[in-house]
Amino acid sequence: MRLLREKIEQEGIVLSDGVLKVDSFLNHQIDPILMKEIGLEFARRFEADGITKIVTIESSGISPAVMAGLELGVKVVFARKRKSLTLTNNLLVSSVYSFTKQEENNIAVSSQFLSQEDRVLIIDDFLANGEAAKGLVDIVNQSGATVTGIGIVIEKSFQKGAQELVDLGHRVESLAKIASLKEGKVSFVEQLEEVTS
Amino acid sequence: MRLLREKIEQEGIVLSDGVLKVDSFLNHQIDPILMKEIGLEFARRFEADGITKIVTIESSGISPAVMAGLELGVKVVFARKRKSLTLTNNLLVSSVYSFTKQEENNIAVSSQFLSQEDRVLIIDDFLANGEAAKGLVDIVNQSGATVTGIGIVIEKSFQKGAQELVDLGHRVESLAKIASLKEGKVSFVEQLEEVTS
Repeated sequence: MRLLREKIEQEGIVLSDGVLKVDSFLNHQIDPILMKEIGLEFARRFEADGITKIVTIESSGISPAVMAGLELGVKVVFARKRKSLTLTNNLLVSSVYSFTKQEENNIAVSSQFLSQEDRVLIIDDFLANGEAAKGLVDIVNQSGATVTGIGIVIEKSFQKGAQELVDLGHRVESLAKIASLKEGKVSFVEQLEEVTS
Repeated sequence: MRLLREKIEQEGIVLSDGVLKVDSFLNHQIDPILMKEIGLEFARRFEADGITKIVTIESSGISPAVMAGLELGVKVVFARKRKSLTLTNNLLVSSVYSFTKQEENNIAVSSQFLSQEDRVLIIDDFLANGEAAKGLVDIVNQSGATVTGIGIVIEKSFQKGAQELVDLGHRVESLAKIASLKEGKVSFVEQLEEVTS
């Protein structure tokens, strides 16, 4: 998605070989016009799949997910992150390790918002090692619903998450794929569909 | 806003005289179509005010804020909630007490996303005692920007927040105003503009 790639080139800050900061349009400040375009692109890629619900995770997944939900005409559920869980009644819970924060968190979704009949699109802002996405897949699986696809705004393709999710049989659609952040520079994976479009 | 009021009547769950749960369309599951209507209504109410930025707070403020930002053509910054703050470099921080959770939290916004010239619309999902809104006002004031208005999705008018913010000189626009949650029933404040519209 060219618009997103340009935004990353213009405003992304490479903090290290592994960390890209996009606080100016996605993770702290949000650009609503870009989010709308992202929602349209997710809808375009998944519109044939009979999606009935989108599942994401707070906080940065919410904007792209809600815009995609608006286009696809489905509701969005965001998983909550919680350090500890006392009450787990009616909650679907999974444990997610954050490499950035080096801590384990629980993520939780109320079981009432997912049913066996649901065809779920999982959306998240970043895909690196895939911990959050796998936690969301786990929650959807617990509910008996079907994971129809995984939509990612920015994939760090040099980390293992995307390949692992594909190996598990999931369709992963990432709107920007980063090949490397070495030497302070963002290099994108060549995407044939964009070169030819 | 009639659509929102109907949604609250249909799906809101009164947990006690003080607590209304709207997890099915705002606080856990999100209804994107309703959020778009909410964004349009905020834009209608504040379009003459020269808003340059919206400030909200994670996580439930994000959807209505981003939809309002889309309509008003401005970016949205969401304050992050943090129990402890180690690094406060370049952060505008305020302390917010949660009556629901009975704990004090810090909320923080990077100073780079607010400037003295900004005319800020603060948006949040609920207004009860006004702690979160006052924390956001504090952060905007620290930046030197101007708080132009406060837009709230659901105001619990029987609690003190709205009146306190008005007494401080702020314009508060709440899309649904709840007079009482007694006896398990949601009663709305009569809103002349809706009765006559």
